[in-house]
Amino acid sequence: MSTYAARTIDELKNEYAAVKGHYEDLKARALSLNMARGKPGKAQLDLVSDILTVLTDPAQCVSDGIEARNYGELTGLPAAKRLFAELLGCKPEECFIGGNASLTLMYDTISKAYTHGLLHSEKPWCKEEKIKFLCPCPGYDRHFKITESFGFEMINIPMTPTGPDMDLVESLVKDPTVKGMWCVPKYSNPDGIVYSAETVRRIAAMKPAAPDFLLMWDNAYCIHEFDGDFVPFDDILTLCREAGNPDMVFEYASTSKITLPGAGVSVMAASVDNQKYMESLLTIQTISYDKVNQLRHVLYLKDKENTLKLMKKHAEIMRPKFQCVLRWLDTEIEPLGIASWQRPKGGYFVSVNTVPGLAKRTLALCKEAGVVMTGAGATFPYGKDPQDSNIRIAPSLPPVEELEQAMDVFCTCLKLAALEQKLA
Amino acid sequence: MSTYAARTIDELKNEYAAVKGHYEDLKARALSLNMARGKPGKAQLDLVSDILTVLTDPAQCVSDGIEARNYGELTGLPAAKRLFAELLGCKPEECFIGGNASLTLMYDTISKAYTHGLLHSEKPWCKEEKIKFLCPCPGYDRHFKITESFGFEMINIPMTPTGPDMDLVESLVKDPTVKGMWCVPKYSNPDGIVYSAETVRRIAAMKPAAPDFLLMWDNAYCIHEFDGDFVPFDDILTLCREAGNPDMVFEYASTSKITLPGAGVSVMAASVDNQKYMESLLTIQTISYDKVNQLRHVLYLKDKENTLKLMKKHAEIMRPKFQCVLRWLDTEIEPLGIASWQRPKGGYFVSVNTVPGLAKRTLALCKEAGVVMTGAGATFPYGKDPQDSNIRIAPSLPPVEELEQAMDVFCTCLKLAALEQKLA
Repeated sequence: MSTYAARTIDELKNEYAAVKGHYEDLKARALSLNMARGKPGKAQLDLVSDILTVLTDPAQCVSDGIEARNYGELTGLPAAKRLFAELLGCKPEECFIGGNASLTLMYDTISKAYTHGLLHSEKPWCKEEKIKFLCPCPGYDRHFKITESFGFEMINIPMTPTGPDMDLVESLVKDPTVKGMWCVPKYSNPDGIVYSAETVRRIAAMKPAAPDFLLMWDNAYCIHEFDGDFVPFDDILTLCREAGNPDMVFEYASTSKITLPGAGVSVMAASVDNQKYMESLLTIQTISYDKVNQLRHVLYLKDKENTLKLMKKHAEIMRPKFQCVLRWLDTEIEPLGIASWQRPKGGYFVSVNTVPGLAKRTLALCKEAGVVMTGAGATFPYGKDPQDSNIRIAPSLPPVEELEQAMDVFCTCLKLAALEQKLA
Repeated sequence: MSTYAARTIDELKNEYAAVKGHYEDLKARALSLNMARGKPGKAQLDLVSDILTVLTDPAQCVSDGIEARNYGELTGLPAAKRLFAELLGCKPEECFIGGNASLTLMYDTISKAYTHGLLHSEKPWCKEEKIKFLCPCPGYDRHFKITESFGFEMINIPMTPTGPDMDLVESLVKDPTVKGMWCVPKYSNPDGIVYSAETVRRIAAMKPAAPDFLLMWDNAYCIHEFDGDFVPFDDILTLCREAGNPDMVFEYASTSKITLPGAGVSVMAASVDNQKYMESLLTIQTISYDKVNQLRHVLYLKDKENTLKLMKKHAEIMRPKFQCVLRWLDTEIEPLGIASWQRPKGGYFVSVNTVPGLAKRTLALCKEAGVVMTGAGATFPYGKDPQDSNIRIAPSLPPVEELEQAMDVFCTCLKLAALEQKLA
């Protein structure tokens, strides 16, 4: 089998006829499959549903002397802070425990920067003429939507196999209107890249011109290995403190992909000074988050050792799905030279980069054949992929047997798009 | 027993000596009692703790075909919408189900008005020169803190026995910089006043100059009678729609004082057009709220009839506490002519208005004797009670035997403050 680039027009026409025929067969199956979002599948939900029974007795509801059922304790239960601090490698007093969504804590941080300013802001960001934000990409669409929603100018930062292009980042942060940067440091969304220790150190040691530069450290996949053992990762709060930037970083994580995605607990980790400042703003927004659910998580997850054991069970469910995706790509696409991809060992995605100009068409063909995927361009700011190349595959939701069909459709559509382009 | 005003200096001096002696006795007891916040007591927590056992089987987690354990359904479970719609008298499609705090939904509404504008805003409120907000007072300190936090100018609106002074309100809303108004329409915080049907109709029919006037309708005590049967109350969404103001109002409620205060479910009710608009902003802030907890509430509360039965049980716990407060006030304070108060049949507070100038001193004396109460002035914008007169008593948290002691302290301190003033 040779690459498409090496084939003659006649060979490509024959291939087109064969692929088109297979595509029509697939369409005739009237499939309805979804690889759009990093949504855990039913087996993962069932795996963790004992959390529904772990707290049933009112006598269990007192934690460190705090009545979890009543109002109070804005910053969260101490036991929940200890649990997250152990998972993230920071200190309990650096942890603020939120509701079921770390996305909300991220939004609220940026919203408060906009309405009130951060600890070291000269004024609220809504009073600034211009705010720019660095966006390593491909990246997480929901991050970009937040900064887009507040009207910030987003600047694309290319991802490398060791993380964001740090030469570019270090140069751009000299601009005082550059106020922050999005990062998913471990198993980045969507590439699954783990930032190298060197990259993380360079990020922590940045010298931004903006005194209130906001490093948004979304450690969404901090313990989410699906292939191999837990990979230790430096604590960004410590590194920033040691580099003289103690208040530059806010780190986020949640149990959404550890326990129940719709009913988890989130954390925002930051310096104690940042915590005090944010508490002064968040106390206006709420009395306290759901401490009963925090306690449920403490009782269910117990500690890091026990949580990592649970993650191994998630991995057993996830690994075959990623193996399926990679097998299809390796077998059907690799020989054709029309796309490349990372081989992540954790996280929730496989990120495929096609030769330029194929992403939109591939996904349109998938949709027509009943396979819904993350929209083309979604992994870039403003939904604009300059190369029309990146496609995020989210294999977690469908069972493997459905995934086999979905990947058949995907590979067929990618080939078809490539052949259409060649023959146009 | 004659009023203090009718007594001679010698009589007042004798009274002072007696009251002061009793105060010193009380101080010697080294009490530590809290009547500061509308926090349910332990008996109420225990009353509703069966909610911890109502959802334990994964098979229960599908509601109207929706998997409650997974991500999704930003606006909430349909079953939760139906439950709240029945409680509030509005339509399910007018309900947005949030997390554990209606305060957060209120904050988020105002925050979004500030950062993005409301449905009928010409621009985000942060781009306006001046924003004014009407604050019926005494009122809820956490409301005032929100509008203060965003720098709005708050205008005091006197409360009458039928609700806010509507002549004043109708006149002030002709000013286009007046952008909204706080209301707790049923068992107002702290007076426990139920707005009359006439007041509610006048509010719904206001003709504000601001096209994006925001009526903040915090129906916190919608079913919270502790004395007598449920009192029906007109649906504000219907009244506003009928008056040609369909998008003027956002209504809020929660189960915080129905089930567990720290782990309840909140609702924001508004026109379908408002819901669509807010959804377009809230979808940036979160993927979905905790649907497992929503489902727990649906299973536990079932419907309005069952929920009202539960509220009768709360009333059995609450009523003796209010009776205790009123008995102390009637016996010890009423004959002296130094304060007046409402006699609420629902809600969480008794609001005492002293003769001018006694509130701060009374509460300082209480604190010295180990009784913590809501800070003086807290019931007014900027914490400034122009008369230094209003004191909010929150009797829900302490058991009756503690409340007896706390009210002894309170009445003693109020007398002492009055006598100090007379003798100064």
